[in-house]
Amino acid sequence: MRILGIDPGYGKIGYGVLDKIGNKFKTIDFGVIYTDKDKELPLRLYEIKQKITTLIEKYNPDESSVEDLFFFRNVTTAIQVGEARGVILVALVENKIPIYEYTPFQIKQAVTGYGRAEKGQVARTLKLLLNLKKNPTPDDAADALAAAFCHGNFRGVI
Amino acid sequence: MRILGIDPGYGKIGYGVLDKIGNKFKTIDFGVIYTDKDKELPLRLYEIKQKITTLIEKYNPDESSVEDLFFFRNVTTAIQVGEARGVILVALVENKIPIYEYTPFQIKQAVTGYGRAEKGQVARTLKLLLNLKKNPTPDDAADALAAAFCHGNFRGVI
Repeated sequence: MRILGIDPGYGKIGYGVLDKIGNKFKTIDFGVIYTDKDKELPLRLYEIKQKITTLIEKYNPDESSVEDLFFFRNVTTAIQVGEARGVILVALVENKIPIYEYTPFQIKQAVTGYGRAEKGQVARTLKLLLNLKKNPTPDDAADALAAAFCHGNFRGVI
Repeated sequence: MRILGIDPGYGKIGYGVLDKIGNKFKTIDFGVIYTDKDKELPLRLYEIKQKITTLIEKYNPDESSVEDLFFFRNVTTAIQVGEARGVILVALVENKIPIYEYTPFQIKQAVTGYGRAEKGQVARTLKLLLNLKKNPTPDDAADALAAAFCHGNFRGVI
């Protein structure tokens, strides 16, 4: 089963693709999608939708794991990231990819055993769990990979 | 020129359709779109996209006026309404409807001359300005009609 993990954002969106085969994970890819800062916000949202659709077409995931949003410094940021997240969810629905949502706490706990782990600890644990050559970077990509891992872990053996 | 005003929301979305002919406004329609509370959130977002697209196909607006979001009691609500707003914006982009965004302050000021006007005052003024038989209701529909009026007012004569 292939899982697409997504860490939502407006300017950058982390993604991570994992295959779960039996009890084992195989890392397919991870990285970050950027949107054009010079574009007006509605056009950036449309860009997000197009790029998520391209990701889905490229990796053909069976299920998706999307991080829930929490704790913003201000409401304006929360609304903007919410806008991006809404568009990501609709792109997944339109492509008929089942969506599972996990809180940052659940994701960190699934990876490290500790819901309040630091980002560095999450990255180091992912490196070990997924047999990566180095810690996954940047942070948004590592978060997305962690979301995919979390879902694979909860999902059980298919 | 036909303007579609939208008051974004997750569970209910206000809309108002106005024609501006020379210096005059003609009210075409206004009302509220509801989404199914029993559906999971991503499917409700998809429902929003479909219903906004249906509105666009029905009224064929030249431009749209979408209310900016402000002042939420909590960040969770802000994120949810942000998600809905993002989906609405993408539906407008996909249908090639130019988007204009106004704050609640700008909208109230355009209608009543006072940016901090109460909802009742906005509805009463809209009734007079648009020659309606009674105050527009519910609130979300009145807000969307006010957004459309605000844009028509700023837009000048086409």
